[in-house]
Amino acid sequence: MRIGILTSGGDCPGLNAVIRGAVLKGDRIHGHEFLGIKDGWRGLVEDDVAPLPRHQIRGLSKQGGTILGTSRVGPYGEGNGGAERVRQTMERHGMDALIAIGGEGTLTVARMLHDEGIDVVGVPKTIDNDLSATDYTFGFDTAVHVATEAIDRLRTTGESHHRCMVLEVMGRHAGWIALHAGVAGGAHAILVPEVPVGYDQVAEWVEATMERGRAPLVVVAEGFMPDGEIVSGGEVDGMGRPRLGGVGEQVAHEIEARTGIESRAMALGHMQRGGSPTAYDRVLATRFGTAALDAVHDRAYGQMVALAGTEIVRVPLAEATTELKSVPRERWDEAAILFG
Amino acid sequence: MRIGILTSGGDCPGLNAVIRGAVLKGDRIHGHEFLGIKDGWRGLVEDDVAPLPRHQIRGLSKQGGTILGTSRVGPYGEGNGGAERVRQTMERHGMDALIAIGGEGTLTVARMLHDEGIDVVGVPKTIDNDLSATDYTFGFDTAVHVATEAIDRLRTTGESHHRCMVLEVMGRHAGWIALHAGVAGGAHAILVPEVPVGYDQVAEWVEATMERGRAPLVVVAEGFMPDGEIVSGGEVDGMGRPRLGGVGEQVAHEIEARTGIESRAMALGHMQRGGSPTAYDRVLATRFGTAALDAVHDRAYGQMVALAGTEIVRVPLAEATTELKSVPRERWDEAAILFG
Amino acid sequence: MRIGILTSGGDCPGLNAVIRGAVLKGDRIHGHEFLGIKDGWRGLVEDDVAPLPRHQIRGLSKQGGTILGTSRVGPYGEGNGGAERVRQTMERHGMDALIAIGGEGTLTVARMLHDEGIDVVGVPKTIDNDLSATDYTFGFDTAVHVATEAIDRLRTTGESHHRCMVLEVMGRHAGWIALHAGVAGGAHAILVPEVPVGYDQVAEWVEATMERGRAPLVVVAEGFMPDGEIVSGGEVDGMGRPRLGGVGEQVAHEIEARTGIESRAMALGHMQRGGSPTAYDRVLATRFGTAALDAVHDRAYGQMVALAGTEIVRVPLAEATTELKSVPRERWDEAAILFG
Amino acid sequence: MRIGILTSGGDCPGLNAVIRGAVLKGDRIHGHEFLGIKDGWRGLVEDDVAPLPRHQIRGLSKQGGTILGTSRVGPYGEGNGGAERVRQTMERHGMDALIAIGGEGTLTVARMLHDEGIDVVGVPKTIDNDLSATDYTFGFDTAVHVATEAIDRLRTTGESHHRCMVLEVMGRHAGWIALHAGVAGGAHAILVPEVPVGYDQVAEWVEATMERGRAPLVVVAEGFMPDGEIVSGGEVDGMGRPRLGGVGEQVAHEIEARTGIESRAMALGHMQRGGSPTAYDRVLATRFGTAALDAVHDRAYGQMVALAGTEIVRVPLAEATTELKSVPRERWDEAAILFG
Repeated sequence: MRIGILTSGGDCPGLNAVIRGAVLKGDRIHGHEFLGIKDGWRGLVEDDVAPLPRHQIRGLSKQGGTILGTSRVGPYGEGNGGAERVRQTMERHGMDALIAIGGEGTLTVARMLHDEGIDVVGVPKTIDNDLSATDYTFGFDTAVHVATEAIDRLRTTGESHHRCMVLEVMGRHAGWIALHAGVAGGAHAILVPEVPVGYDQVAEWVEATMERGRAPLVVVAEGFMPDGEIVSGGEVDGMGRPRLGGVGEQVAHEIEARTGIESRAMALGHMQRGGSPTAYDRVLATRFGTAALDAVHDRAYGQMVALAGTEIVRVPLAEATTELKSVPRERWDEAAILFG
Repeated sequence: MRIGILTSGGDCPGLNAVIRGAVLKGDRIHGHEFLGIKDGWRGLVEDDVAPLPRHQIRGLSKQGGTILGTSRVGPYGEGNGGAERVRQTMERHGMDALIAIGGEGTLTVARMLHDEGIDVVGVPKTIDNDLSATDYTFGFDTAVHVATEAIDRLRTTGESHHRCMVLEVMGRHAGWIALHAGVAGGAHAILVPEVPVGYDQVAEWVEATMERGRAPLVVVAEGFMPDGEIVSGGEVDGMGRPRLGGVGEQVAHEIEARTGIESRAMALGHMQRGGSPTAYDRVLATRFGTAALDAVHDRAYGQMVALAGTEIVRVPLAEATTELKSVPRERWDEAAILFG
Repeated sequence: MRIGILTSGGDCPGLNAVIRGAVLKGDRIHGHEFLGIKDGWRGLVEDDVAPLPRHQIRGLSKQGGTILGTSRVGPYGEGNGGAERVRQTMERHGMDALIAIGGEGTLTVARMLHDEGIDVVGVPKTIDNDLSATDYTFGFDTAVHVATEAIDRLRTTGESHHRCMVLEVMGRHAGWIALHAGVAGGAHAILVPEVPVGYDQVAEWVEATMERGRAPLVVVAEGFMPDGEIVSGGEVDGMGRPRLGGVGEQVAHEIEARTGIESRAMALGHMQRGGSPTAYDRVLATRFGTAALDAVHDRAYGQMVALAGTEIVRVPLAEATTELKSVPRERWDEAAILFG
Repeated sequence: MRIGILTSGGDCPGLNAVIRGAVLKGDRIHGHEFLGIKDGWRGLVEDDVAPLPRHQIRGLSKQGGTILGTSRVGPYGEGNGGAERVRQTMERHGMDALIAIGGEGTLTVARMLHDEGIDVVGVPKTIDNDLSATDYTFGFDTAVHVATEAIDRLRTTGESHHRCMVLEVMGRHAGWIALHAGVAGGAHAILVPEVPVGYDQVAEWVEATMERGRAPLVVVAEGFMPDGEIVSGGEVDGMGRPRLGGVGEQVAHEIEARTGIESRAMALGHMQRGGSPTAYDRVLATRFGTAALDAVHDRAYGQMVALAGTEIVRVPLAEATTELKSVPRERWDEAAILFG
């Protein structure tokens, strides 16, 4: 078989390990050939495809980013030709099937293409851990690791200066990174999109922490929406989120306004999604890659691979993209006993 | 309630996070008091027990080792007084229940004590990941992380000198650390206790790797038993394991004897079980700690906490200790496509 | 002798190792006693002083921040009582001498106090590496290490998305962190306060990098002042620096406006000054601590310790604070051959 | 000019950064061409030489090992043809000059070749930091970093089990790695080749540490020679060093025999010389590379580059290799106040 591989959407530690896993298994066990599609769906839309021989995937398990490049172009974008264009590019290169590695958007496109007869297998990628069809995806553990290191560093500054430190992490719709990094780093408050909390409550936790002689550390997911009054000024949108600056800055201002405790914010930004994956993510990504190849080999098209407990399973793409995996209230409550 | 906590057996990153999780939840939610039992069961046998107030568990989530100390003393050891002695010490301190954190041996003792009427809840600890009743335990991810870093470092030396490098990791009965670190680090052979492999086969993988212009990297679990001839000399026991030196040295000698390729071994040893836990292990250990407290609070004695998928569940101690969780053949086969 | 120790100004990895070095040497070799002064000069102004026995400095060499706390309060601030208040507090506690650990401001205060008869020895602290009287100070290597890790992570995101990534690091007056991290991370442009560079030149480097098929990585010190036109809008001050947002954002906007290449900025902020010091900084800080104690023991008041090559020497405080150590043009030129 | 580059002797983090620095400066500033000589002097003896174009040195600053390979072959070895063979190979490839990167042996060969008319410039490499002509060399900081991380990890195991942990690090003739890592990690004893210490003294330090309630941590350089009685048995050579096993094992046995305190040893081995260099080493190695190119460009043959304070200088090869840089007694005494 000739199999095309693409990575689409935001980059994520482990993408290269998926590619390597699929190519190694296909090349060695079944003698399949591989084609690297450049910059996600763009490579199919614009016919930017090149052979992906085995020697190119050398040493990739520990390399961050994606050697195939990525973009946010989709085949159903205006003038991009839809499934027909994809089919033409695949035929031109003699491609029998696709492995599409990406997030919710990418997997939705993969499902639509499959509905139109394209032979495609999905690999889920979400650094935010918000896909309900899989227990975890690669990249999430690395993001949590980076955020936890940041907490460990910020904490000493807070303690030395008797300040409250606020760390803003990724998580537009789901607060998994904030939750895990906050628990790992011993945060005194964790603010996530799923749980409305008012700044008066946050100020109480911060003051309680100071009273115990410690410097408060607050972790906030970028998608957090405060419940209740905002006193620090600055334009906000209908959800109470600041129009300028990040929510981390808002949290620091609100705390300072309420408590008088000097507060500083830091947004971790792109650091969370780049660089070498953790060992956990390398293993998961490699397993996803070999399992995706198996799925192609078995013609299990329209499916994606997923983690269920310790097993790699297959899930229909249709199921995979229906529901956002939010932080359940009980997980936040479990963490909240550590607050203040 | 007054609750005693002990850590027993080999140390493991995350023990302190378990202690912290249990104490924080008990102290804040239920107003329980805690007693720290020194050096595992020894503290109950010899009545070495001290209050464990909340301020002592500050900042512990990232600290390796155990602030309570540990030992291999057990209550059923000769002259140690068995359940009766344990009960007396508990009564002397007004202890209502025990949280026992430890491996298979510790959990077996906990089960026996529970059978004799002691109110005890278990928390599984095994850096080797060989307890069948839980998907993972804390410490394992840290060990894999450390071993993967070692592979990343050894690899550049191997490449520069055109040598074969052999890394010996922990795993007396189960090869999980070798499997995960080997996959994460892109090893060219992974040798585990569960899968008999002959040194002729290993030599073939090593030579195939050299022929592709790469420096071979072999990971071997300390409990690996070679299948077939041993040519490098040195006394071996009935299982083919060297009487002197580690199995890593044996692997290096056997490879060098068969292929003429210069080979060097390194045993990672205690580095794997010490130091600050990974974020993954800190989260899991904290959850185990709070869940163990909940189990005590619910009088769910004779149970231990466990990870099932993404959930923390309770499992009877009796079930927990019956079966070793080995690396299944299919997991090793999945990795073996990367060999050579 | 009874010796007071204080840490003043911004926190810095290695402060605790200095404290530990001084206390261990004084306690063990000479039997001196130590007093910890809280939050820098504030502790002397407000008489917030406590014994600093040896057991409190246990395990401090690897701990970030300062256990003594810090602040920006100075004895010559209005109503703070000047040298007289310092002398009174010292007399009240029977303090024979002071060890003052801090940056240019702290050392200037120490010099003024010494001129007024206070027995004080200085230890230089500047994460920016901008004190001319010492080759290096502790904290700088850690900041460079953290910034270099950030570059390594940002780079993979840049490569995957074909973006230009901009990292803003500390350095208000001197570009040492930018220079060292940029060279270590292989940056394609390094912008420092000492060297005026126009954004047209930066855009040329960025385009040249893209043409070679690589994703440009630009490191900019917070004190960088652009030479020439600013096209991206936004209010700037007389030096061309943005009034809102950091200079990193400005650099990204200017590059994008000139080249059309998508550009993203990240400010490393407090991450650079917190957390566990590198081994290099732990060694240097420990040596500074023991050498400061020796200076006190020798009554070498009015001096500070400094690194000259591989030796720890003493330098008069008066000399220490006269001149800012800038990045010399030839060091920047040496790095600039790597640009573009 | 056409310039040949070779790396010889044991590998070392930073070799690739030296190569990159030299090639980038030569290619961009002067338009020089480069040839990569394979496996050190072997490439000249056996004519194994290939062009080294700029694109091959991409991203090398952070990569451990050497892309050119290394070996211990020398041109003055029997049948290797000496300077004449070197000259012939150079002429065959039109090589105008050599950059030889290596340790004492390599630099001695370079000096001898220069005496016979070969145009060569040296770059010092010694992970042990034992070359007197330079303040530091690249690789040393990385080795200290790795050893310090190991100490941080071993310490928690020691504390949990009330054991004495012994870490054996590199340093056959000079104890620099042991000294710096020991100080950085807060070791309770540091044993180096330069300072004879008896095991009775070591046992005293270990016991004093235990009495203070801490777990002793001993760092020993592989070249340490004990002073006085050895009680633990095992064959030793004339210097008191064990014939079998490492000196770390001997130290652990001797401590246990004298104190009854359970002691465990770990040898760090190849981990110290592999992997990604620290930021410090990347900067130093890059500067050495560009400075070596400058020296070639200036026809400063027979010289090597060196670090003096913060400057890169040139030193005659003849001077560079005359004297071993040992740990001076006062540096060890400075550290020894931390022992016990």
